[in-house]
Amino acid sequence: VADEAVKYRLVAILGLGLLGSSMARALRARGLCEGIIGWSPRESTREEALNHKLVDATVDSPEQAVAEADLVVAATPVSHIVKLIGAISKSTTNGTIVTDVGSTKRSITDAGDKHLPGRFVGSHPMAGGEKSGLAASRADLFQNAPCIITPTESTHRAAVDRIEKLWTDLGCRVTRMGPLEHDRLMADVSHLPHAIAAAVVAIQEERALGIAGNGFRDTTRVAAGDPQLWRDIFIDNRDAACRSIDRCVAWLRDFRTALQAGDGQRIESMLAAAAKRRAGM
Amino acid sequence: VADEAVKYRLVAILGLGLLGSSMARALRARGLCEGIIGWSPRESTREEALNHKLVDATVDSPEQAVAEADLVVAATPVSHIVKLIGAISKSTTNGTIVTDVGSTKRSITDAGDKHLPGRFVGSHPMAGGEKSGLAASRADLFQNAPCIITPTESTHRAAVDRIEKLWTDLGCRVTRMGPLEHDRLMADVSHLPHAIAAAVVAIQEERALGIAGNGFRDTTRVAAGDPQLWRDIFIDNRDAACRSIDRCVAWLRDFRTALQAGDGQRIESMLAAAAKRRAGM
Repeated sequence: VADEAVKYRLVAILGLGLLGSSMARALRARGLCEGIIGWSPRESTREEALNHKLVDATVDSPEQAVAEADLVVAATPVSHIVKLIGAISKSTTNGTIVTDVGSTKRSITDAGDKHLPGRFVGSHPMAGGEKSGLAASRADLFQNAPCIITPTESTHRAAVDRIEKLWTDLGCRVTRMGPLEHDRLMADVSHLPHAIAAAVVAIQEERALGIAGNGFRDTTRVAAGDPQLWRDIFIDNRDAACRSIDRCVAWLRDFRTALQAGDGQRIESMLAAAAKRRAGM
Repeated sequence: VADEAVKYRLVAILGLGLLGSSMARALRARGLCEGIIGWSPRESTREEALNHKLVDATVDSPEQAVAEADLVVAATPVSHIVKLIGAISKSTTNGTIVTDVGSTKRSITDAGDKHLPGRFVGSHPMAGGEKSGLAASRADLFQNAPCIITPTESTHRAAVDRIEKLWTDLGCRVTRMGPLEHDRLMADVSHLPHAIAAAVVAIQEERALGIAGNGFRDTTRVAAGDPQLWRDIFIDNRDAACRSIDRCVAWLRDFRTALQAGDGQRIESMLAAAAKRRAGM
């Protein structure tokens, strides 16, 4: 019944960082589930989640967490989600739907199709920021955020619809696309900007940082993001990320050629095309 | 007398775009001058400035504007400032101090040293944004903005002190450096980020723009800036800008090599160095 909020009895959230904890807060705030069980590799994080009443209970292992859940959300770093899917597959019942919040999708949906055929639906809510961890979590993190879900040919249609409804209920604008297309577009729109921001910070002389204005701050903001999380993302999506870098470097090379030639007309037309596009967003 | 606000009898502002108009508003708001005379190449802009009472009078030519002024501020686009300095040199009296607000400095201070020896002091207030023009002007535009002034060996010390005081009185944090060093650092900290932002926008597929998150928006915000103004800046500072692009591309090439090799350790250490630096700003 598409118009009613989809209710879950017990949601298992695996990983209680920014996204997992915000998911717990958002599910509660919107009354989308009756109970939440949480797992995190660190005991201190599990205790913090209990103390803040983000979850109703915590357990020592992912397998225990998923045993009675009807919805499982894998919210660990990208490289860990693939392992997690293998680890929990024997402990979930056939009615359990499993999703994730990872920033790359193909390796994750491959694992889902293998270990949880039909009932794994990859998700990528594009929310977050430079702050990470449970302490930065917010119930409204997903409000108005784009969220891409990446069903494959073998994903059950009912599972896809339920996960789409879940994200819609959490306030996201949901788009569906294949995992490969997702990874290609994300390399352009998210992973490249991160690499670029890191490059711009890295090449600065110390003195330059003291005179940097708002333009520099905006352009490089994402470079402050967690290096381990981003390492995982880049390594997992390296083929597409390399292609994005190549296209960006090719544009810069054209620009540099025009610059060295003093070709103001070409410089202006390259900048004008980008300005028009960006202003239209 | 360094502690008192420096007062000017008549300030001539040449160019009434975002920076010139904001300068007029700020000078008035802080009571730093008795009168302001404005010039802009467009009659409609001059009328708008009068209607908004930004200036006390407007004139048809830069030469008329500067004739009785004790402070002249050149606030036209970079490529025009050099011509302006030559044009007004015969019309200013020896006591008149001339400054500018251009984003590049060497070509401008060269013109200043030639046509207004001793009494031209190059300035670069790093204020503004994607919006341009008189309509976007604000009295507090310079509040807390970094401002670099670029005296040369031939600039009179008293003129430098007065211009430093002017920007301090307008709320800026003032740094002094040579025009060449300014242009080199600006290529890194401002012109490169602009080229990079334009590149990242330019290579996107149409579909990617619809799923872009805040990271993309931040990273590419500056790309919406005025293409003609930026063309001038790039062309004027092309040698330094080319060197900045080269260093950025070299970093990206290293990153790509590590990525293709699946060298997670190297990727993480490159990202971590940038993250630490950016988080410390």
